[in-house]
Amino acid sequence: MGARSVCLMTDMTLSQLPPVTAVVDSLTKHGVTYMIYEDVRVEPTDRSFKAAIEFAKKGDFDVYVAVGGGSVIDTCKAANLYASHPEAEFLDFVNAPIGKGKPITAALKPLIAVPTTAGTGSETTGVAIFDFEDMKAKTGIANRALKPTLGIVDPLHTLHMPSRVAANSGFDVLCHALESFTALPYNQRSPCPLNPIHRPAYQGSNPISDVWAKHALRIVAKYLKRAVCDAGDVKARSSMHLASVFAGIGFGNAGVHLCHGMSYPIAGNVKTHKAKGYCVDHPIVPHGLSVVLTSPAVFSFTANMCPERHLEAAEILGADVSKVKKADAGSVLSDTLRSLLYDLDVEDGLSAIGYSSKDIPALVKGTIPQERVTKLSPRAHTEEDLSALFEASMKLY
Amino acid sequence: MGARSVCLMTDMTLSQLPPVTAVVDSLTKHGVTYMIYEDVRVEPTDRSFKAAIEFAKKGDFDVYVAVGGGSVIDTCKAANLYASHPEAEFLDFVNAPIGKGKPITAALKPLIAVPTTAGTGSETTGVAIFDFEDMKAKTGIANRALKPTLGIVDPLHTLHMPSRVAANSGFDVLCHALESFTALPYNQRSPCPLNPIHRPAYQGSNPISDVWAKHALRIVAKYLKRAVCDAGDVKARSSMHLASVFAGIGFGNAGVHLCHGMSYPIAGNVKTHKAKGYCVDHPIVPHGLSVVLTSPAVFSFTANMCPERHLEAAEILGADVSKVKKADAGSVLSDTLRSLLYDLDVEDGLSAIGYSSKDIPALVKGTIPQERVTKLSPRAHTEEDLSALFEASMKLY
Repeated sequence: MGARSVCLMTDMTLSQLPPVTAVVDSLTKHGVTYMIYEDVRVEPTDRSFKAAIEFAKKGDFDVYVAVGGGSVIDTCKAANLYASHPEAEFLDFVNAPIGKGKPITAALKPLIAVPTTAGTGSETTGVAIFDFEDMKAKTGIANRALKPTLGIVDPLHTLHMPSRVAANSGFDVLCHALESFTALPYNQRSPCPLNPIHRPAYQGSNPISDVWAKHALRIVAKYLKRAVCDAGDVKARSSMHLASVFAGIGFGNAGVHLCHGMSYPIAGNVKTHKAKGYCVDHPIVPHGLSVVLTSPAVFSFTANMCPERHLEAAEILGADVSKVKKADAGSVLSDTLRSLLYDLDVEDGLSAIGYSSKDIPALVKGTIPQERVTKLSPRAHTEEDLSALFEASMKLY
Repeated sequence: MGARSVCLMTDMTLSQLPPVTAVVDSLTKHGVTYMIYEDVRVEPTDRSFKAAIEFAKKGDFDVYVAVGGGSVIDTCKAANLYASHPEAEFLDFVNAPIGKGKPITAALKPLIAVPTTAGTGSETTGVAIFDFEDMKAKTGIANRALKPTLGIVDPLHTLHMPSRVAANSGFDVLCHALESFTALPYNQRSPCPLNPIHRPAYQGSNPISDVWAKHALRIVAKYLKRAVCDAGDVKARSSMHLASVFAGIGFGNAGVHLCHGMSYPIAGNVKTHKAKGYCVDHPIVPHGLSVVLTSPAVFSFTANMCPERHLEAAEILGADVSKVKKADAGSVLSDTLRSLLYDLDVEDGLSAIGYSSKDIPALVKGTIPQERVTKLSPRAHTEEDLSALFEASMKLY
């Protein structure tokens, strides 16, 4: 790539760990000038994005290297984007309706993504997600121009993940696969864009994303528990790392729907929840946890639109579906998910992470702007439906 | 793409059929100037490649559109390549050792591939194959720069395929999947290139190509017979068209090995064989047929290097492998293949298409230069081994 001035982005926890030192050693060995930005916020915000953007604008970098989980890679995508469009205002590229969703016109610099968690698939996608603090909701920037040039998927980088990080990032993989597999099919989206250039990044489930979703799901079924229980299980952690990539290729084209759409206000409205196993100085609901807690309710709700797919997913996750009627597809998949979450010691629903029924209006309000993803739900839904889904997710067991 | 002057390549048979008229209508409707080249030879040669290259050089085209099977798409790739490198000699980019295998330095023009057969996967790969007449052997050009910019995979385009074309192109899909799935693993190739830029297009089997190979094989198992027997079975023909793409993505990265390596002299040395169902004025062994006739012998030969994969492939193709020992993996897969070929009314081995034992030295000689692919065989082999494989392929049933 002919790099002369590299921006290396990471977070405080990782900056002393082998994945970062390997990059630093390599840059030093090859005489490439670099600057390190280690102030990435875990679960980034508009403010933390802007700080990284300022750093990038001042640096005049010609290649970006992001070493970390989705928070780092997403922050680096945003820094690269705005440094390449110095005249743009922050909301210009943020997804409508929160931002203006403008097209990206200038070429970005090459970005090498080195994922150190096995969840986001951010190394494969054109999406960067952040918490818009004023609205208490997550939103993002979605454009294929953000896709990293290269992903270096080294499973040894995931061995340092604490058990809860492995679990939560694994839940993100699980939901990427389940949501993209059950998303509205690409040929049923409407209205059809008048011109292919208006086709969204998320196109609905399709024959290619289906392959990746099912393949990722099979790996989750086989290896997630092992990867959570034993950080030294290289085979399990390697497999989950690849599953994250595979699910990313799938959902990066097909999209996700309600679990992700509803997760953003769950994370954005966090009050006091201290996530086990995360070294951060602010309350957070880790992304994968915020996504998976509504999954039993969501797939109960969507199953009747494509029961075969819900049954196929339940079967891959270990359920015996040989005598199950189509009408019971939703309850079978949601019971399978509940059992998996229970086995993995997941908090008992939204109530266990600090929410109660009186928070539901705020959670629904935060879901409304997530239309970019929620419109890919196979089942149309009202605000009342969303309220019912949050209510049903208060307790799982 | 801002096209102003399009080169539309196709063959004589297709030039009056709907896939071509649809392109012509679209170009006309949008006021794009174009020229049609319909002299593509089915199973192209160096001479037919050079004729297409001359046409492209004179035309000053800014976009290429190839409508046809692998012969058309491959010819169009070559025309685009050499028109973009007007100073190059023909052998400059041809694979070593026959050609010089030089790197491709200039940018090629966009190429849109519209496959009308369901076999080659050429719309997904950076490979263009031709028959080098002086040597009576097929060779090619392999570089990722040749990959089409866009593939338009419309299953309705395959409904016009005669039954034997559907069968032979389906055999190509079958062998792409089986060979890439059993190819030498990417991490066992040696010597390891000193620099990643020397990494070949064909990298050996890997976790991503495996997904595509197995997925394509499942579709072949389910739909090939239906697609051959009933040209109007849209579901079967659509599925095989997608299987061709999927297998292409897989083998385009992993590579193929002995069936393909040995097929080139089988096709190149053809004397009198008139392929059923093909409207051509010269003897040919259709590519898919030349590939599949050695497959029972080849997978018997390679099975002991990775018996689990051979058994998994046999199982996908319908064999009961529950009580089969690893040592019998080769015979089980080759029996499964023989049975499939018999059911599909395939000629009884090389002897049925005009070869006898006395041709074997020439066939072996034509295989030697195919090292680009044969070195991906999981089992090392001598000239004697190749002789034995050709001999074992003389009769199948």
